[in-house]
Amino acid sequence: MAKAKLRIIPIGGCGEIGKNMTVVELGGDAIIIDTGIMFPANDMLGIDYIIPDFRYLQERKDLKLHGIVYTHGHEDHVGATQHVVQAFPGVPIYATPLTAGLIGLKLQEAQVQGSTKINVFQAGDTIKVGPFSIESFHVTHSIPDCVGLGINTPFGLVVHSGDYKFDNTPVDGKKPDYAKLAEFSKRGVLLLMGDSTNADVPGWTPSETVVDAGLDGVFRQAKGRIMVATFASHISRVHQIANAAARHGRKLAVAGHSMAANIKMARELGILRIPDEMFVPLDQIGHMQKSKICILVTGAQGEPTAVLGRLATGRHRQLDVQEGDTIVLSAHTIPGNEESVSRTINRLFQRGAEVVYDPIAAVHVSGHAKQEEMKLLMSLTNPKYFMPVHGELKQLKAHANLAVQMGIPRERIAIVENGFVIEFDKQGMRIGDRVPGGYLFVDGSGVGDIGKTVIKDREVLARDGFIMVIATVDRKSGELVEDPEIISRGFVYLKEASELMSIVKETIENSLASSNGQNGRRRERLTENISRILYSETKRRPMVFSVINER
Amino acid sequence: MAKAKLRIIPIGGCGEIGKNMTVVELGGDAIIIDTGIMFPANDMLGIDYIIPDFRYLQERKDLKLHGIVYTHGHEDHVGATQHVVQAFPGVPIYATPLTAGLIGLKLQEAQVQGSTKINVFQAGDTIKVGPFSIESFHVTHSIPDCVGLGINTPFGLVVHSGDYKFDNTPVDGKKPDYAKLAEFSKRGVLLLMGDSTNADVPGWTPSETVVDAGLDGVFRQAKGRIMVATFASHISRVHQIANAAARHGRKLAVAGHSMAANIKMARELGILRIPDEMFVPLDQIGHMQKSKICILVTGAQGEPTAVLGRLATGRHRQLDVQEGDTIVLSAHTIPGNEESVSRTINRLFQRGAEVVYDPIAAVHVSGHAKQEEMKLLMSLTNPKYFMPVHGELKQLKAHANLAVQMGIPRERIAIVENGFVIEFDKQGMRIGDRVPGGYLFVDGSGVGDIGKTVIKDREVLARDGFIMVIATVDRKSGELVEDPEIISRGFVYLKEASELMSIVKETIENSLASSNGQNGRRRERLTENISRILYSETKRRPMVFSVINER
Repeated sequence: MAKAKLRIIPIGGCGEIGKNMTVVELGGDAIIIDTGIMFPANDMLGIDYIIPDFRYLQERKDLKLHGIVYTHGHEDHVGATQHVVQAFPGVPIYATPLTAGLIGLKLQEAQVQGSTKINVFQAGDTIKVGPFSIESFHVTHSIPDCVGLGINTPFGLVVHSGDYKFDNTPVDGKKPDYAKLAEFSKRGVLLLMGDSTNADVPGWTPSETVVDAGLDGVFRQAKGRIMVATFASHISRVHQIANAAARHGRKLAVAGHSMAANIKMARELGILRIPDEMFVPLDQIGHMQKSKICILVTGAQGEPTAVLGRLATGRHRQLDVQEGDTIVLSAHTIPGNEESVSRTINRLFQRGAEVVYDPIAAVHVSGHAKQEEMKLLMSLTNPKYFMPVHGELKQLKAHANLAVQMGIPRERIAIVENGFVIEFDKQGMRIGDRVPGGYLFVDGSGVGDIGKTVIKDREVLARDGFIMVIATVDRKSGELVEDPEIISRGFVYLKEASELMSIVKETIENSLASSNGQNGRRRERLTENISRILYSETKRRPMVFSVINER
Repeated sequence: MAKAKLRIIPIGGCGEIGKNMTVVELGGDAIIIDTGIMFPANDMLGIDYIIPDFRYLQERKDLKLHGIVYTHGHEDHVGATQHVVQAFPGVPIYATPLTAGLIGLKLQEAQVQGSTKINVFQAGDTIKVGPFSIESFHVTHSIPDCVGLGINTPFGLVVHSGDYKFDNTPVDGKKPDYAKLAEFSKRGVLLLMGDSTNADVPGWTPSETVVDAGLDGVFRQAKGRIMVATFASHISRVHQIANAAARHGRKLAVAGHSMAANIKMARELGILRIPDEMFVPLDQIGHMQKSKICILVTGAQGEPTAVLGRLATGRHRQLDVQEGDTIVLSAHTIPGNEESVSRTINRLFQRGAEVVYDPIAAVHVSGHAKQEEMKLLMSLTNPKYFMPVHGELKQLKAHANLAVQMGIPRERIAIVENGFVIEFDKQGMRIGDRVPGGYLFVDGSGVGDIGKTVIKDREVLARDGFIMVIATVDRKSGELVEDPEIISRGFVYLKEASELMSIVKETIENSLASSNGQNGRRRERLTENISRILYSETKRRPMVFSVINER
């Protein structure tokens, strides 16, 4: 038994490493930790979202997959579950109640809830998944019911932090499980896998409860309606907003499908304790005093189709922004969304609202540990080996530098990119081969059918557009028999480019005349000649296509 | 004379207001303050840069333009000078020595230096431009030779802050001109136009000299070569880097055309005092000890074609990143560039460099005032009216809120978007009409020929690409005489989409068969049918075009 190697493989993720999906193998047995999605970067044109490339697992037919264990319910940890469940039907899921609830909604929507069984455990429980006995421990983050995992292996204990910060005054009162971490340390920790999100930020992340004071300040000053935008999955923030509303005599209305569904589920589970009488239906707020209303909305990332985005452009069916409204953005801006968030804020101001956002007021704090908390986690667990995860390479490097400061020798720290295999045997740790472990684009209903070539083409089209020329020529003389048709988009505004179009037509005539007889090369030369004249006239390089019809 | 109204019009700028170009008119006389460019947002696809739309001035033939006065030499204040000089030949320029030097280089490059005369003044000088006596005053920012302007008008003194922070220990030792501001206050200030960039950030911006300590820390620890990336125009930062290099026994090499040109010019002007023996040519550093080298590079915004971007992808002719190199990013990330900067940092780490950036070390500070400094400026000048400028609407609103806290009544604060006319007469201030005052896209050699339609098309192409079908049919039967040609880019990878292409071909056949005889509608229906089948098969909406040739 002890001859089988322990292998840990971060797969999935784009930019960030070991965040969305991790495989832990012992010989022929394996488990998965988390199955999340990533949001596309601004230059991944037209892509809806990104899922982990788990081809490696599909190819390892010899591997027995015993289960998927979840750390918490955020999209970047559960968002790809339906894709994984479809690929591996019958593999059971293990999650805490809220995480299980969020996954359940997702599987229902994708109509694959029959393909798996969700096993619910409580933070602190030990679960047995395949060859591993896994001791879960409560961690504080920006959603309730988060856990880290202590995975018992023949080579020692592997501690996975999950997403965490050390919040000693969490919204739900459930403090980090320091006792379990201390106990792990006493038994000896082989490897710590630690969340690196804020590894390049000095200091200590403030408690979620500082947001209470921030919200109170806003609620005290607001005279009209208040709208608060946050993530639909940010259940503890919803709780804080509800509390602030109650303290200031306001009722809650909810706008946005995902927000409503998550609140309903979390209330049914008893995780979100808001009395029924606090809620009013959205279509009835018109009859209420403005100072009695607080509306929870989606769209804190500036997404144009979510509630806040629609309000900013005046395209929401039931709501509009009114002079005197106070709108609060109570969420972190995901890197890459800065522009759309900023534009949304400006548009809401344009419509007469007062908009409150961080740093104008402390209406949001990070859910992730900063440097001092990372040092605390290392002190508490005292690991032999360290593997920074959940971050881009720059954050993993910064986290590794902290680990060195904490006395962990550099050679016992594994900084790897997605797909690299970390192996443990009796001799210790080594970094092994690389397996496919990247990501797949999801665009419309297609998964993974958009590759680099298509994205590259989209880049060229986005930069300079295209022009297509359809020339009909006489079969014998090769001369144009009618005006060539020119179709172009994204290049110049054709209606205002008649001079340029005359030049193009002239080029077509000359090109056809000079290449008469050279049948094979005629089309190619026409394309080249048009490209050349367009660049010299405009200094732009649209895609050029040409078609020659003989009549 | 006193009957002529004073009109102030912020024009140019996209998102930000009153930053790139401002017009000040008195009756039929006018001056311009600054003529800068903006960088395109991520969704302004294919646009190189943006210049102010100064159509209004071109249309006001009756207006006599007396000069362009510059506050400082950053691109967002001088970058469009060549376009303005071309449009208004003969209008003189007024600038401090460094600003004049930077403008001179720019006009030479565009070969329009003959169209204007650059009048150099010193900070503190009073200049007479048209009907205005303008008292310049030194302000501290992140480039030397910055001024604010006190413009004497028949209705009172208008104070324009320029870009500023209150840096009491500036790199060049030249402190803000508090005396002049106090004197203005004694005489009475009609209007303060204040830089709003950091109006939503509490506190006080640290002095530029904190960067000295940050750089010293980096230089002390680095064992191999050091490369520092900053803006080519950030002359005071270059000075600080040169000082750090000298203190730690390193020589300076320069990579990047604009950086080299600016350093040469600033040294010739005596603004940058670095002895000759500090410099080594870039092609000779190969012979030197690595610990004796410091290289100044361009590309701190992650631009793929600047030096740092080329180093990150291994495409620089003379330099490559070596294990043990320390690379410092000593510049602010312009909003919208976060992703490309982050990607560049990750790639440099991948190549084995140690990368240092804010907040890892204090190697950069903002050049703009924060809230406490803004309050100080208002206290010092004690204006009757206030107009927040240089910021997006959200920052102008935040700045206005500060002004209210400072005791300026809300009705004396003008928050306007670009193009609105602020008018003063004996009765006081009013917000007048709106004139064209937006921005123009510059793409390749075209200025303003790319409008919303073209950008919209680029968006659609970027999202889902296009497909074009060319069907050749029999003139009489209307049936296909050969396989239709399908050209597509940015939609799906055609080589791996044979199944989809068969469906498209089938759709073409059916569509042509069923619309035989309906000549006019045949092409339209073909396009619609293909769009429909593609959406139902892929949930994507590429642009679809079709051409039918009769043979």
